[in-house]
Amino acid sequence: MGEVAIAEAASTRFGEHDETARELAVDAALDVLDTAGLDGDELDGLFVANAFGMADKQGHVGPLVATAIGAPNVPSSTTEAACASASVAFRHAVAHVRAGMAETALVVGTEKVSHIDTLTATSYFCYGSDFFVEGGVGATFPGLYATIARAHMDAYGTTEEDLARVAVKNHANGVHNAKAHFRKEITIDDVLDSYVVADPLKLYDACPFSDGASAMIVTTPEKARELSDTPIRVEATSQRGTIAALSEREDLTSIEATKLAGRDALDQAGLGLDEIDLFEVHDCFTIAELVAMEDLGLAEPGKAMAMVREGQTEPDGDTPVNASGGLKAKGHPVGATGTGQIAEAVEQLRGEVEPERQVEGAEHVLTHNVGATGGTVTAHVFGRMD
Amino acid sequence: MGEVAIAEAASTRFGEHDETARELAVDAALDVLDTAGLDGDELDGLFVANAFGMADKQGHVGPLVATAIGAPNVPSSTTEAACASASVAFRHAVAHVRAGMAETALVVGTEKVSHIDTLTATSYFCYGSDFFVEGGVGATFPGLYATIARAHMDAYGTTEEDLARVAVKNHANGVHNAKAHFRKEITIDDVLDSYVVADPLKLYDACPFSDGASAMIVTTPEKARELSDTPIRVEATSQRGTIAALSEREDLTSIEATKLAGRDALDQAGLGLDEIDLFEVHDCFTIAELVAMEDLGLAEPGKAMAMVREGQTEPDGDTPVNASGGLKAKGHPVGATGTGQIAEAVEQLRGEVEPERQVEGAEHVLTHNVGATGGTVTAHVFGRMD
Repeated sequence: MGEVAIAEAASTRFGEHDETARELAVDAALDVLDTAGLDGDELDGLFVANAFGMADKQGHVGPLVATAIGAPNVPSSTTEAACASASVAFRHAVAHVRAGMAETALVVGTEKVSHIDTLTATSYFCYGSDFFVEGGVGATFPGLYATIARAHMDAYGTTEEDLARVAVKNHANGVHNAKAHFRKEITIDDVLDSYVVADPLKLYDACPFSDGASAMIVTTPEKARELSDTPIRVEATSQRGTIAALSEREDLTSIEATKLAGRDALDQAGLGLDEIDLFEVHDCFTIAELVAMEDLGLAEPGKAMAMVREGQTEPDGDTPVNASGGLKAKGHPVGATGTGQIAEAVEQLRGEVEPERQVEGAEHVLTHNVGATGGTVTAHVFGRMD
Repeated sequence: MGEVAIAEAASTRFGEHDETARELAVDAALDVLDTAGLDGDELDGLFVANAFGMADKQGHVGPLVATAIGAPNVPSSTTEAACASASVAFRHAVAHVRAGMAETALVVGTEKVSHIDTLTATSYFCYGSDFFVEGGVGATFPGLYATIARAHMDAYGTTEEDLARVAVKNHANGVHNAKAHFRKEITIDDVLDSYVVADPLKLYDACPFSDGASAMIVTTPEKARELSDTPIRVEATSQRGTIAALSEREDLTSIEATKLAGRDALDQAGLGLDEIDLFEVHDCFTIAELVAMEDLGLAEPGKAMAMVREGQTEPDGDTPVNASGGLKAKGHPVGATGTGQIAEAVEQLRGEVEPERQVEGAEHVLTHNVGATGGTVTAHVFGRMD
């Protein structure tokens, strides 16, 4: 398969914004075009990700963004795969470049939810579950991930403190991320004392509803070199699915698609796990980070919590995980989360993030993005181009 | 670019169904898998199109369909581009096959709206417009296309009878389409006497809200030959956009993206317009068929109506248009319309449609699908494989 690269990437701050989803998308898109020195009409593909367009009564976002960035004739699409929407849109762009159907593609993930009430936002999230047997009968995402957490506790003795440590670590990283939604340190007691959302998960075990957008130019390695002094290689892009509803799965302590996509991504990249310098994984809830680590092979089942406890997953540890603050502290603008992870990977590989959370000399970064409870999982690997 | 083919295609009846969008998708998917002799787990890509998932409170449809057809681990995505959603999802599949990121991809377009009231359905359609300056201030799609119709009348003297003739012709074709939503002949007077929806467009100038799903296997030519005795070649796939809001365009009598995509598709296919035996175009309203014909180059501006009047666009005419009955009579299940056009092309090229509407010896078919008022336009060309 043809090689593909990222010329530039950019992200808005994640958090609360006054702008609409499309305006946030345009902000991120113009930022990346400006850095790359490109005009909109030099693009030949636009891949938008957005999950909750109904919150603005706005579908068909592609042509709106295209028009606003001066590229009204560019082919566009809007892709949805719940919380993995942007990673899937990114894969569509990669496919188009590899196929020769685009040379200079713009990917933009965007989301805006802070203007709707929490109950409505929770309902929209439920649309990402199997609504007949999950969301529609009262299983919210905190409830679904609480089920996973309870299964993990039963199987491995995971404790609420173990979960809390993930939140504490990610908040500590978020403090040093200028784009993060939450920039405050928290303690284990803060987590344990926060109110119960879905037992055993508490408020501080959960990522926030965030607004935000992220964008990047996906192109050929040759074109990327023209547009940037420090282009980034797409070393692997993989995606797999899992049986959609939790109730139909045999094992709730693991997400099959993460195992499959993670393994495939390393094969594609020709790298061992120990050659990955940073893992940006999908920690929509604290338990999700532990499960992701185990499914990716960073730890045996039930052993990820020990790595967190020992500090191994901190930015200066042996196996840094979510140096950005993760979804937990950086934030989770659903349709922008996957592209946000990729923008983070680009900055880490360039050595451009804040020193406190920079993984020194990072050469390969793996991003892991989950839609719902794993119906969709992507794993991508990025590396420097010499 | 690598060659791509369609092994099999299938469509449900378009019209009213009791099933949900996902159930319709599964019906169409299993139909096509059965014909191709494939099991779900032999697929390596699933591309779903769906526009109004909020009507069922169901997003993230990909993994649900994947699970139901026995392919839970297959990578899936759901694409939305208003009324062109399925044609864009089809292009994503083509890109993945050309890129080597999938070998045997399933595309499924699906929609279900008949269970919601007409006002709500009309609102959902409005989400496909630029909601800030169109849908949100009262411009429904009948209103937007009425604006186009009025501009066309002013520029070229198009009459309400000219528009009505498009509806009459497409209804006459729909009578012979077992999958069509409407299977009854109508007269010019029926159209003119039907109630005004948005002056000058009347009820019978408009396509219906339909439920339905269509699916196809997109693969390499080699694999297509293994799976089918009569595989179909994807001779061209093109897509372009137009400035999203009508109010920002200079000319309302034409849709720029159709001109660009149509020309590009013919270039890709290496064919002249006169080598295309059938045009399945996006006639969401009668005026849209005339504008599409003119933008595709079948007629000079303002001259398409004469071709309709003279019978040239009937199935046995020189330039058959919408032998299926088009969106007008075959129906318009938004997320399934583009794949429905492609399924029609496949059947026409195989000589398998009802004799009354079969274009004799059809060797090349062009499908034209429009999102909203042309923010998205696709043009694909399909041909027989010898």
